[in-house]
Amino acid sequence: MSLTYEQAHRALEAAVSKAAEIGSPSSIAVLDAGRELMAFARHERALLASVEISQGKAYAACSMQMPSGELGPLSQPGAPFFGLETTQRRPFVTFGGGQPLQIGGEFAGAVGVAGGTIDQDEEVAAAAVSSVAGT
Amino acid sequence: MSLTYEQAHRALEAAVSKAAEIGSPSSIAVLDAGRELMAFARHERALLASVEISQGKAYAACSMQMPSGELGPLSQPGAPFFGLETTQRRPFVTFGGGQPLQIGGEFAGAVGVAGGTIDQDEEVAAAAVSSVAGT
Amino acid sequence: MSLTYEQAHRALEAAVSKAAEIGSPSSIAVLDAGRELMAFARHERALLASVEISQGKAYAACSMQMPSGELGPLSQPGAPFFGLETTQRRPFVTFGGGQPLQIGGEFAGAVGVAGGTIDQDEEVAAAAVSSVAGT
Amino acid sequence: MSLTYEQAHRALEAAVSKAAEIGSPSSIAVLDAGRELMAFARHERALLASVEISQGKAYAACSMQMPSGELGPLSQPGAPFFGLETTQRRPFVTFGGGQPLQIGGEFAGAVGVAGGTIDQDEEVAAAAVSSVAGT
Repeated sequence: MSLTYEQAHRALEAAVSKAAEIGSPSSIAVLDAGRELMAFARHERALLASVEISQGKAYAACSMQMPSGELGPLSQPGAPFFGLETTQRRPFVTFGGGQPLQIGGEFAGAVGVAGGTIDQDEEVAAAAVSSVAGT
Repeated sequence: MSLTYEQAHRALEAAVSKAAEIGSPSSIAVLDAGRELMAFARHERALLASVEISQGKAYAACSMQMPSGELGPLSQPGAPFFGLETTQRRPFVTFGGGQPLQIGGEFAGAVGVAGGTIDQDEEVAAAAVSSVAGT
Repeated sequence: MSLTYEQAHRALEAAVSKAAEIGSPSSIAVLDAGRELMAFARHERALLASVEISQGKAYAACSMQMPSGELGPLSQPGAPFFGLETTQRRPFVTFGGGQPLQIGGEFAGAVGVAGGTIDQDEEVAAAAVSSVAGT
Repeated sequence: MSLTYEQAHRALEAAVSKAAEIGSPSSIAVLDAGRELMAFARHERALLASVEISQGKAYAACSMQMPSGELGPLSQPGAPFFGLETTQRRPFVTFGGGQPLQIGGEFAGAVGVAGGTIDQDEEVAAAAVSSVAGT
Protein backbone atom coordinates (compact mmCIF):
# COMPACT_ATOMS: atom_id res chain seq x y z
CA MET A 1 0.00 0.00 0.00
CA SER A 2 1.18 3.47 -0.75
CA LEU A 3 0.01 7.05 -0.31
CA THR A 4 -2.43 8.60 -2.74
CA TYR A 5 -1.71 12.11 -3.87
CA GLU A 6 -4.56 13.32 -1.64
CA GLN A 7 -2.97 11.70 1.40
CA ALA A 8 0.49 13.01 0.57
CA HIS A 9 -0.99 16.46 0.08
CA ARG A 10 -2.82 16.29 3.42
CA ALA A 11 0.39 15.25 5.21
CA LEU A 12 2.29 18.08 3.54
CA GLU A 13 -0.29 20.70 4.40
CA ALA A 14 -0.43 19.57 8.03
CA ALA A 15 3.34 19.94 8.24
CA VAL A 16 3.36 23.32 6.47
CA SER A 17 0.77 24.61 8.96
CA LYS A 18 2.67 23.32 11.96
CA ALA A 19 5.95 24.84 10.69
CA ALA A 20 4.21 28.21 10.32
CA GLU A 21 2.59 27.89 13.76
CA ILE A 22 5.92 27.28 15.51
CA GLY A 23 7.83 29.75 13.31
CA SER A 24 10.30 27.30 11.80
CA PRO A 25 11.01 27.98 8.08
CA SER A 26 11.24 24.44 6.74
CA SER A 27 11.57 22.10 3.82
CA ILE A 28 9.08 19.24 3.96
CA ALA A 29 9.18 16.17 1.72
CA VAL A 30 6.67 13.33 1.44
CA LEU A 31 7.74 10.08 -0.24
CA ASP A 32 5.56 7.18 -1.29
CA ALA A 33 6.22 3.60 -0.16
CA GLY A 34 8.56 3.17 -3.14
CA ARG A 35 10.77 6.06 -1.86
CA GLU A 36 9.81 8.44 -4.67
CA LEU A 37 8.86 12.06 -4.08
CA MET A 38 5.12 12.79 -3.98
CA ALA A 39 4.87 16.23 -2.39
CA PHE A 40 7.32 18.91 -1.33
CA ALA A 41 7.20 22.43 0.06
CA ARG A 42 9.97 24.83 1.08
CA HIS A 43 9.52 28.19 2.75
CA GLU A 44 11.56 30.90 1.01
CA ARG A 45 13.47 31.54 4.24
CA ALA A 46 14.42 27.91 4.90
CA LEU A 47 18.14 27.08 4.80
CA LEU A 48 19.09 25.72 1.38
CA ALA A 49 20.63 22.65 2.98
CA SER A 50 17.10 21.67 4.00
CA VAL A 51 16.12 20.85 0.41
CA GLU A 52 18.29 17.75 0.42
CA ILE A 53 18.19 17.02 4.14
CA SER A 54 14.38 16.85 4.28
CA GLN A 55 14.35 14.40 1.39
CA GLY A 56 17.22 12.47 2.95
CA LYS A 57 15.37 12.06 6.24
CA ALA A 58 12.24 10.85 4.46
CA TYR A 59 14.37 8.54 2.32
CA ALA A 60 15.99 6.99 5.41
CA ALA A 61 12.65 6.63 7.22
CA CYS A 62 11.13 5.05 4.14
CA SER A 63 14.08 2.76 3.46
CA MET A 64 14.10 1.33 6.97
CA GLN A 65 10.48 1.95 8.02
CA MET A 66 11.86 3.63 11.15
CA PRO A 67 12.20 7.21 12.35
CA SER A 68 15.40 8.73 10.93
CA GLY A 69 16.46 9.81 14.41
CA GLU A 70 16.58 6.19 15.60
CA LEU A 71 19.02 5.37 12.81
CA GLY A 72 21.67 7.79 14.08
CA PRO A 73 22.71 5.78 17.16
CA LEU A 74 22.56 2.57 15.15
CA SER A 75 24.98 3.85 12.50
CA GLN A 76 27.69 5.37 14.71
CA PRO A 77 31.23 3.99 14.72
CA GLY A 78 31.08 0.77 16.75
CA ALA A 79 27.29 0.41 16.40
CA PRO A 80 25.55 -2.40 14.49
CA PHE A 81 24.82 -0.46 11.30
CA PHE A 82 28.01 1.61 11.07
CA GLY A 83 28.16 3.11 7.59
CA LEU A 84 24.47 2.57 6.88
CA GLU A 85 24.11 6.09 5.48
CA THR A 86 26.55 5.31 2.66
CA THR A 87 24.78 2.22 1.39
CA GLN A 88 21.94 3.76 -0.59
CA ARG A 89 21.85 5.63 -3.88
CA ARG A 90 20.62 8.89 -2.44
CA PRO A 91 21.46 11.02 0.59
CA PHE A 92 20.33 9.08 3.66
CA VAL A 93 20.03 11.20 6.78
CA THR A 94 20.16 9.59 10.21
CA PHE A 95 19.18 12.44 12.49
CA GLY A 96 15.71 13.38 13.66
CA GLY A 97 12.95 14.77 11.45
CA GLY A 98 12.06 11.78 9.25
CA GLN A 99 9.07 9.58 10.10
CA PRO A 100 7.33 6.67 8.40
CA LEU A 101 3.72 7.40 7.49
CA GLN A 102 1.09 4.83 8.29
CA ILE A 103 -2.43 4.66 6.93
CA GLY A 104 -4.70 2.56 9.10
CA GLY A 105 -1.68 1.01 10.78
CA GLU A 106 0.08 0.02 7.60
CA PHE A 107 3.31 1.50 6.22
CA ALA A 108 2.56 3.78 3.27
CA GLY A 109 5.47 6.19 2.85
CA ALA A 110 7.45 8.75 4.86
CA VAL A 111 7.82 12.42 5.66
CA GLY A 112 11.06 14.34 6.20
CA VAL A 113 11.44 17.82 7.67
CA ALA A 114 14.51 20.07 7.86
CA GLY A 115 15.30 23.70 8.53
CA GLY A 116 14.67 24.03 12.26
CA THR A 117 16.20 22.50 15.34
CA ILE A 118 15.85 18.76 15.49
CA ASP A 119 13.03 19.17 18.05
CA GLN A 120 11.21 21.54 15.73
CA ASP A 121 11.70 19.26 12.75
CA GLU A 122 10.35 16.33 14.78
CA GLU A 123 7.30 18.34 15.82
CA VAL A 124 6.54 19.32 12.23
CA ALA A 125 6.97 15.73 11.04
CA ALA A 126 4.66 14.49 13.80
CA ALA A 127 1.89 16.75 12.48
CA ALA A 128 2.18 15.05 9.10
CA VAL A 129 2.11 11.60 10.70
CA SER A 130 -1.06 12.36 12.67
CA SER A 131 -2.85 13.91 9.73
CA VAL A 132 -2.98 10.69 7.75
CA ALA A 133 -2.87 8.00 10.44
CA GLY A 134 -6.60 7.47 10.56
CA THR A 135 -7.44 7.98 6.91
CA MET B 1 13.90 38.33 -7.49
CA SER B 2 12.67 34.90 -6.60
CA LEU B 3 9.38 33.19 -5.82
CA THR B 4 7.92 33.28 -2.35
CA TYR B 5 6.47 30.07 -1.02
CA GLU B 6 2.98 31.45 -1.56
CA GLN B 7 3.70 32.12 -5.22
CA ALA B 8 5.30 28.71 -5.73
CA HIS B 9 2.31 27.10 -4.04
CA ARG B 10 -0.14 29.02 -6.24
CA ALA B 11 1.73 27.95 -9.39
CA LEU B 12 1.75 24.34 -8.22
CA GLU B 13 -1.96 24.31 -7.39
CA ALA B 14 -2.86 25.83 -10.76
CA ALA B 15 -0.90 23.09 -12.49
CA VAL B 16 -2.36 20.32 -10.32
CA SER B 17 -5.88 21.54 -11.16
CA LYS B 18 -5.15 21.72 -14.87
CA ALA B 19 -3.62 18.23 -14.88
CA ALA B 20 -6.76 16.86 -13.17
CA GLU B 21 -9.00 18.75 -15.59
CA ILE B 22 -7.34 17.28 -18.67
CA GLY B 23 -6.85 13.85 -17.10
CA SER B 24 -3.06 13.74 -17.27
CA PRO B 25 -1.46 12.15 -14.16
CA SER B 26 1.62 14.34 -13.74
CA SER B 27 4.64 15.30 -11.72
CA ILE B 28 4.95 19.06 -11.30
CA ALA B 29 8.02 20.84 -9.92
CA VAL B 30 8.48 24.52 -9.10
CA LEU B 31 12.03 25.88 -8.65
CA ASP B 32 13.10 29.26 -7.32
CA ALA B 33 15.33 31.62 -9.31
CA GLY B 34 18.40 29.84 -7.90
CA ARG B 35 17.21 26.49 -9.30
CA GLU B 36 16.30 24.96 -5.92
CA LEU B 37 13.06 23.04 -5.38
CA MET B 38 10.25 25.02 -3.72
CA ALA B 39 7.13 22.96 -4.43
CA PHE B 40 6.38 19.57 -5.91
CA ALA B 41 3.37 17.33 -6.46
CA ARG B 42 3.02 13.95 -8.13
CA HIS B 43 -0.20 12.10 -8.81
CA GLU B 44 -0.04 8.48 -7.64
CA ARG B 45 -0.69 7.33 -11.20
CA ALA B 46 2.06 9.41 -12.81
CA LEU B 47 4.94 7.54 -14.42
CA LEU B 48 7.90 7.30 -12.04
CA ALA B 49 10.19 8.78 -14.68
CA SER B 50 8.23 11.98 -14.29
CA VAL B 51 9.74 12.66 -10.85
CA GLU B 52 13.12 13.45 -12.37
CA ILE B 53 11.91 14.67 -15.75
CA SER B 54 9.65 17.34 -14.30
CA GLN B 55 12.51 18.66 -12.18
CA GLY B 56 14.89 18.44 -15.15
CA LYS B 57 12.58 20.50 -17.33
CA ALA B 58 12.23 23.15 -14.64
CA TYR B 59 16.00 23.09 -14.11
CA ALA B 60 16.66 23.68 -17.82
CA ALA B 61 14.06 26.46 -18.04
CA CYS B 62 15.55 28.09 -14.95
CA SER B 63 19.17 27.72 -16.08
CA MET B 64 18.56 29.34 -19.47
CA GLN B 65 15.45 31.45 -18.70
CA MET B 66 13.81 29.84 -21.75
CA PRO B 67 11.12 27.20 -22.27
CA SER B 68 12.70 23.75 -22.13
CA GLY B 69 11.10 22.85 -25.46
CA GLU B 70 13.03 25.61 -27.25
CA LEU B 71 16.29 24.14 -26.00
CA GLY B 72 15.79 20.85 -27.83
CA PRO B 73 16.29 22.20 -31.36
CA LEU B 74 19.19 24.38 -30.17
CA SER B 75 21.11 21.44 -28.70
CA GLN B 76 20.75 18.94 -31.57
CA PRO B 77 23.72 17.74 -33.62
CA GLY B 78 24.74 20.60 -35.89
CA ALA B 79 22.86 23.19 -33.83
CA PRO B 80 24.53 26.05 -31.94
CA PHE B 81 24.34 24.50 -28.47
CA PHE B 82 25.04 20.85 -29.33
CA GLY B 83 25.65 19.02 -26.06
CA LEU B 84 24.09 21.70 -23.85
CA GLU B 85 22.26 19.06 -21.80
CA THR B 86 25.56 17.60 -20.59
CA THR B 87 26.94 20.85 -19.19
CA GLN B 88 25.04 21.18 -15.92
CA ARG B 89 25.27 19.38 -12.60
CA ARG B 90 21.75 17.98 -12.60
CA PRO B 91 19.48 16.33 -15.18
CA PHE B 92 18.72 18.97 -17.80
CA VAL B 93 15.75 18.15 -20.01
CA THR B 94 15.39 19.84 -23.39
CA PHE B 95 11.89 18.83 -24.45
CA GLY B 96 8.64 20.62 -23.79
CA GLY B 97 7.02 21.04 -20.39
CA GLY B 98 9.38 23.44 -18.63
CA GLN B 99 8.65 27.16 -18.50
CA PRO B 100 10.24 30.15 -16.79
CA LEU B 101 7.95 31.85 -14.28
CA GLN B 102 7.71 35.59 -14.32
CA ILE B 103 6.26 37.78 -11.60
CA GLY B 104 5.33 41.21 -12.90
CA GLY B 105 7.46 40.65 -15.98
CA GLU B 106 10.60 39.63 -14.13
CA PHE B 107 12.19 36.16 -14.04
CA ALA B 108 11.51 34.51 -10.69
CA GLY B 109 11.89 30.73 -11.15
CA ALA B 110 10.51 27.93 -13.30
CA VAL B 111 7.95 25.14 -13.51
CA GLY B 112 8.44 21.70 -15.02
CA VAL B 113 5.73 19.17 -15.85
CA ALA B 114 6.04 15.54 -16.93
CA GLY B 115 3.83 12.49 -17.16
CA GLY B 116 1.59 13.28 -20.12
CA THR B 117 2.19 13.94 -23.77
CA ILE B 118 4.35 16.95 -24.47
CA ASP B 119 1.25 18.91 -25.44
CA GLN B 120 -0.42 17.99 -22.16
CA ASP B 121 2.70 18.82 -20.16
CA GLU B 122 2.92 22.19 -21.92
CA GLU B 123 -0.74 22.92 -21.16
CA VAL B 124 -0.27 22.11 -17.48
CA ALA B 125 2.88 24.24 -17.29
CA ALA B 126 1.08 27.13 -18.96
CA ALA B 127 -1.52 27.10 -16.19
CA ALA B 128 1.25 27.56 -13.64
CA VAL B 129 2.80 30.40 -15.65
CA SER B 130 -0.52 32.28 -15.89
CA SER B 131 -1.35 31.82 -12.24
CA VAL B 132 1.56 33.93 -11.02
CA ALA B 133 2.26 36.28 -13.93
CA GLY B 134 0.29 39.18 -12.51
CA THR B 135 1.02 38.73 -8.82
CA MET C 1 18.87 39.16 -0.91
CA SER C 2 22.02 38.15 -2.68
CA LEU C 3 25.41 39.63 -3.51
CA THR C 4 25.89 41.86 -6.52
CA TYR C 5 28.97 41.28 -8.62
CA GLU C 6 30.50 44.44 -7.16
CA GLN C 7 30.04 43.15 -3.62
CA ALA C 8 31.39 39.71 -4.49
CA HIS C 9 34.38 41.35 -6.17
CA ARG C 10 35.04 43.55 -3.14
CA ALA C 11 34.93 40.53 -0.81
CA LEU C 12 37.30 38.63 -3.09
CA GLU C 13 39.79 41.47 -3.36
CA ALA C 14 39.82 41.98 0.42
CA ALA C 15 40.61 38.30 0.86
CA VAL C 16 43.28 38.28 -1.87
CA SER C 17 45.00 41.24 -0.18
CA LYS C 18 44.89 39.64 3.25
CA ALA C 19 46.28 36.36 1.89
CA ALA C 20 49.18 38.25 0.31
CA GLU C 21 49.78 40.24 3.49
CA ILE C 22 50.07 37.13 5.65
CA GLY C 23 51.93 35.13 3.00
CA SER C 24 49.37 32.32 2.59
CA PRO C 25 48.93 31.23 -1.06
CA SER C 26 45.19 30.58 -1.19
CA SER C 27 42.11 29.74 -3.18
CA ILE C 28 39.20 32.04 -2.39
CA ALA C 29 35.61 31.45 -3.54
CA VAL C 30 32.59 33.72 -3.17
CA LEU C 31 29.10 32.23 -3.64
CA ASP C 32 25.79 34.05 -3.94
CA ALA C 33 22.86 33.32 -1.61
CA GLY C 34 21.77 30.50 -3.95
CA ARG C 35 25.16 28.75 -3.57
CA GLU C 36 26.39 29.53 -7.09
CA LEU C 37 29.92 30.79 -7.77
CA MET C 38 30.25 34.55 -8.27
CA ALA C 39 33.97 35.22 -7.85
CA PHE C 40 37.09 33.11 -7.46
CA ALA C 41 40.84 33.63 -7.25
CA ARG C 42 43.71 31.20 -6.75
CA HIS C 43 47.34 32.07 -6.27
CA GLU C 44 49.61 30.05 -8.56
CA ARG C 45 51.39 28.61 -5.52
CA ALA C 46 48.22 27.47 -3.73
CA LEU C 47 47.75 23.73 -3.24
CA LEU C 48 45.52 22.28 -5.96
CA ALA C 49 43.25 20.73 -3.34
CA SER C 50 42.31 24.26 -2.38
CA VAL C 51 40.30 24.77 -5.58
CA GLU C 52 37.60 22.39 -4.37
CA ILE C 53 38.07 22.91 -0.65
CA SER C 54 37.56 26.66 -0.83
CA GLN C 55 34.34 26.18 -2.77
CA GLY C 56 33.25 23.40 -0.42
CA LYS C 57 33.72 25.61 2.64
CA ALA C 58 31.72 28.40 1.04
CA TYR C 59 29.06 25.89 -0.02
CA ALA C 60 28.71 24.59 3.55
CA ALA C 61 28.58 28.08 5.02
CA CYS C 62 25.97 29.08 2.46
CA SER C 63 23.88 25.93 2.89
CA MET C 64 23.64 26.28 6.67
CA GLN C 65 24.21 30.04 7.08
CA MET C 66 26.92 29.19 9.63
CA PRO C 67 30.73 29.23 9.64
CA SER C 68 32.02 25.99 8.16
CA GLY C 69 34.25 25.46 11.20
CA GLU C 70 31.20 25.25 13.50
CA LEU C 71 29.79 22.44 11.40
CA GLY C 72 32.73 20.13 12.09
CA PRO C 73 31.93 19.45 15.76
CA LEU C 74 28.20 19.17 14.96
CA SER C 75 28.73 16.45 12.35
CA GLN C 76 31.13 14.19 14.26
CA PRO C 77 30.21 10.66 15.34
CA GLY C 78 27.80 11.01 18.23
CA ALA C 79 26.99 14.65 17.46
CA PRO C 80 23.56 15.91 16.39
CA PHE C 81 24.28 16.21 12.68
CA PHE C 82 26.47 13.12 12.19
CA GLY C 83 26.87 12.62 8.44
CA LEU C 84 25.77 16.13 7.48
CA GLU C 85 28.62 16.43 4.96
CA THR C 86 27.19 13.58 2.88
CA THR C 87 23.74 15.11 2.43
CA GLN C 88 24.36 17.74 -0.24
CA ARG C 89 25.01 17.53 -3.97
CA ARG C 90 28.44 19.13 -3.92
CA PRO C 91 31.54 18.83 -1.73
CA PHE C 92 30.59 20.18 1.69
CA VAL C 93 33.55 21.02 3.91
CA THR C 94 33.10 21.23 7.67
CA PHE C 95 36.38 22.69 8.82
CA GLY C 96 37.29 26.33 9.25
CA GLY C 97 37.65 28.86 6.45
CA GLY C 98 34.06 29.28 5.25
CA GLN C 99 31.95 32.19 6.46
CA PRO C 100 28.49 33.51 5.60
CA LEU C 101 28.54 37.02 4.15
CA GLN C 102 26.08 39.55 5.45
CA ILE C 103 25.17 42.83 3.83
CA GLY C 104 23.60 45.23 6.30
CA GLY C 105 22.93 42.35 8.69
CA GLU C 106 21.20 40.11 6.18
CA PHE C 107 22.52 36.84 4.75
CA ALA C 108 23.68 37.37 1.16
CA GLY C 109 26.13 34.57 0.30
CA ALA C 110 29.38 33.07 1.59
CA VAL C 111 33.15 33.04 1.23
CA GLY C 112 35.44 30.02 1.45
CA VAL C 113 39.22 30.06 1.77
CA ALA C 114 41.72 27.20 1.55
CA GLY C 115 45.43 26.76 1.09
CA GLY C 116 46.85 27.86 4.44
CA THR C 117 46.50 26.66 7.99
CA ILE C 118 42.97 26.81 9.31
CA ASP C 119 43.88 29.91 11.31
CA GLN C 120 45.24 31.57 8.17
CA ASP C 121 42.20 30.57 6.13
CA GLU C 122 39.91 31.97 8.84
CA GLU C 123 41.83 35.24 8.89
CA VAL C 124 41.57 35.59 5.12
CA ALA C 125 37.84 34.79 5.19
CA ALA C 126 37.31 37.34 7.96
CA ALA C 127 38.76 40.05 5.71
CA ALA C 128 36.13 39.25 3.10
CA VAL C 129 33.35 39.29 5.68
CA SER C 130 34.39 42.72 6.99
CA SER C 131 34.75 44.21 3.55
CA VAL C 132 31.07 43.90 2.69
CA ALA C 133 29.36 43.93 6.08
CA GLY C 134 28.49 47.61 6.01
CA THR C 135 27.77 48.03 2.31
CA MET D 1 54.44 27.15 -18.50
CA SER D 2 51.28 28.27 -16.82
CA LEU D 3 49.54 31.50 -15.90
CA THR D 4 50.50 33.39 -12.78
CA TYR D 5 47.70 34.75 -10.68
CA GLU D 6 48.52 38.24 -11.96
CA GLN D 7 48.12 37.10 -15.55
CA ALA D 8 44.90 35.23 -14.84
CA HIS D 9 43.57 38.29 -13.06
CA ARG D 10 44.51 40.56 -15.97
CA ALA D 11 42.74 38.24 -18.43
CA LEU D 12 39.66 38.14 -16.21
CA GLU D 13 39.51 41.91 -15.79
CA ALA D 14 39.88 42.46 -19.54
CA ALA D 15 36.96 40.13 -20.14
CA VAL D 16 34.83 41.68 -17.40
CA SER D 17 35.39 45.12 -18.92
CA LYS D 18 34.54 43.94 -22.43
CA ALA D 19 31.36 42.22 -21.21
CA ALA D 20 30.26 45.43 -19.51
CA GLU D 21 31.13 47.48 -22.59
CA ILE D 22 28.99 45.34 -24.89
CA GLY D 23 26.22 44.85 -22.31
CA SER D 24 26.43 41.06 -22.04
CA PRO D 25 25.98 39.77 -18.45
CA SER D 26 28.50 36.92 -18.40
CA SER D 27 30.32 34.27 -16.47
CA ILE D 28 34.04 34.25 -17.19
CA ALA D 29 36.45 31.50 -16.12
CA VAL D 30 40.24 31.38 -16.42
CA LEU D 31 42.00 28.02 -16.06
CA ASP D 32 45.70 27.37 -15.73
CA ALA D 33 47.61 25.03 -18.04
CA GLY D 34 46.68 22.12 -15.74
CA ARG D 35 42.93 22.83 -16.30
CA GLU D 36 42.34 24.09 -12.76
CA LEU D 37 40.37 27.24 -11.99
CA MET D 38 42.46 30.35 -11.31
CA ALA D 39 39.99 33.21 -11.66
CA PHE D 40 36.26 33.54 -12.10
CA ALA D 41 33.67 36.32 -12.23
CA ARG D 42 29.91 36.21 -12.78
CA HIS D 43 27.63 39.20 -13.19
CA GLU D 44 24.55 38.91 -10.96
CA ARG D 45 22.31 39.02 -14.04
CA ALA D 46 24.09 36.28 -15.98
CA LEU D 47 22.09 33.11 -16.68
CA LEU D 48 22.87 30.46 -14.05
CA ALA D 49 23.73 27.96 -16.79
CA SER D 50 26.72 30.16 -17.56
CA VAL D 51 28.50 29.16 -14.34
CA GLU D 52 29.16 25.68 -15.67
CA ILE D 53 29.22 26.52 -19.38
CA SER D 54 31.98 29.12 -19.02
CA GLN D 55 34.13 26.65 -17.11
CA GLY D 56 33.25 23.91 -19.61
CA LYS D 57 34.38 26.03 -22.56
CA ALA D 58 37.65 26.88 -20.85
CA TYR D 59 38.10 23.22 -19.91
CA ALA D 60 37.62 22.12 -23.53
CA ALA D 61 39.93 24.83 -24.86
CA CYS D 62 42.55 23.89 -22.29
CA SER D 63 42.20 20.15 -22.81
CA MET D 64 42.69 20.37 -26.57
CA GLN D 65 44.64 23.65 -26.83
CA MET D 66 42.05 24.76 -29.40
CA PRO D 67 39.13 27.20 -29.39
CA SER D 68 36.03 25.45 -28.05
CA GLY D 69 34.05 26.51 -31.11
CA GLU D 70 36.34 24.52 -33.41
CA LEU D 71 35.60 21.39 -31.40
CA GLY D 72 31.86 21.46 -32.18
CA PRO D 73 32.12 20.47 -35.85
CA LEU D 74 34.77 17.89 -34.99
CA SER D 75 32.54 16.13 -32.45
CA GLN D 76 29.27 15.92 -34.39
CA PRO D 77 27.76 12.57 -35.32
CA GLY D 78 29.85 11.27 -38.23
CA ALA D 79 32.79 13.58 -37.50
CA PRO D 80 36.24 12.42 -36.40
CA PHE D 81 35.83 13.12 -32.68
CA PHE D 82 32.18 12.12 -32.24
CA GLY D 83 31.50 11.85 -28.50
CA LEU D 84 34.58 13.86 -27.52
CA GLU D 85 32.54 15.88 -25.01
CA THR D 86 31.79 12.76 -22.98
CA THR D 87 35.38 11.64 -22.56
CA GLN D 88 36.56 13.95 -19.80
CA ARG D 89 35.79 14.11 -16.10
CA ARG D 90 34.15 17.52 -16.19
CA PRO D 91 31.65 19.25 -18.47
CA PHE D 92 33.36 19.82 -21.81
CA VAL D 93 31.65 22.40 -24.01
CA THR D 94 32.22 22.42 -27.75
CA PHE D 95 30.59 25.65 -28.82
CA GLY D 96 32.18 29.07 -29.10
CA GLY D 97 33.43 31.15 -26.20
CA GLY D 98 36.46 29.18 -25.00
CA GLN D 99 39.97 30.16 -26.09
CA PRO D 100 43.46 28.98 -25.21
CA LEU D 101 45.61 31.68 -23.61
CA GLN D 102 49.14 32.16 -24.83
CA ILE D 103 51.91 34.08 -23.11
CA GLY D 104 54.68 35.06 -25.51
CA GLY D 105 53.41 32.49 -28.00
CA GLU D 106 53.32 29.60 -25.59
CA PHE D 107 50.22 27.81 -24.29
CA ALA D 108 49.55 28.82 -20.67
CA GLY D 109 45.87 28.15 -19.91
CA ALA D 110 42.42 29.04 -21.24
CA VAL D 111 39.47 31.38 -20.85
CA GLY D 112 35.78 30.49 -21.17
CA VAL D 113 32.88 32.91 -21.46
CA ALA D 114 29.13 32.24 -21.34
CA GLY D 115 25.95 34.20 -20.87
CA GLY D 116 25.61 36.07 -24.15
CA THR D 117 25.19 35.04 -27.75
CA ILE D 118 28.04 32.97 -29.08
CA ASP D 119 29.37 36.05 -30.93
CA GLN D 120 29.30 38.07 -27.73
CA ASP D 121 30.98 35.31 -25.77
CA GLU D 122 33.70 35.07 -28.43
CA GLU D 123 34.27 38.82 -28.31
CA VAL D 124 34.61 38.78 -24.53
CA ALA D 125 37.00 35.83 -24.66
CA ALA D 126 39.09 37.58 -27.32
CA ALA D 127 39.63 40.51 -24.95
CA ALA D 128 41.08 38.12 -22.39
CA VAL D 129 43.34 36.51 -25.00
CA SER D 130 44.72 39.87 -26.14
CA SER D 131 45.30 41.14 -22.64
CA VAL D 132 47.93 38.54 -21.84
CA ALA D 133 49.38 37.65 -25.24
CA GLY D 134 52.34 39.99 -25.02
CA THR D 135 53.09 39.72 -21.32
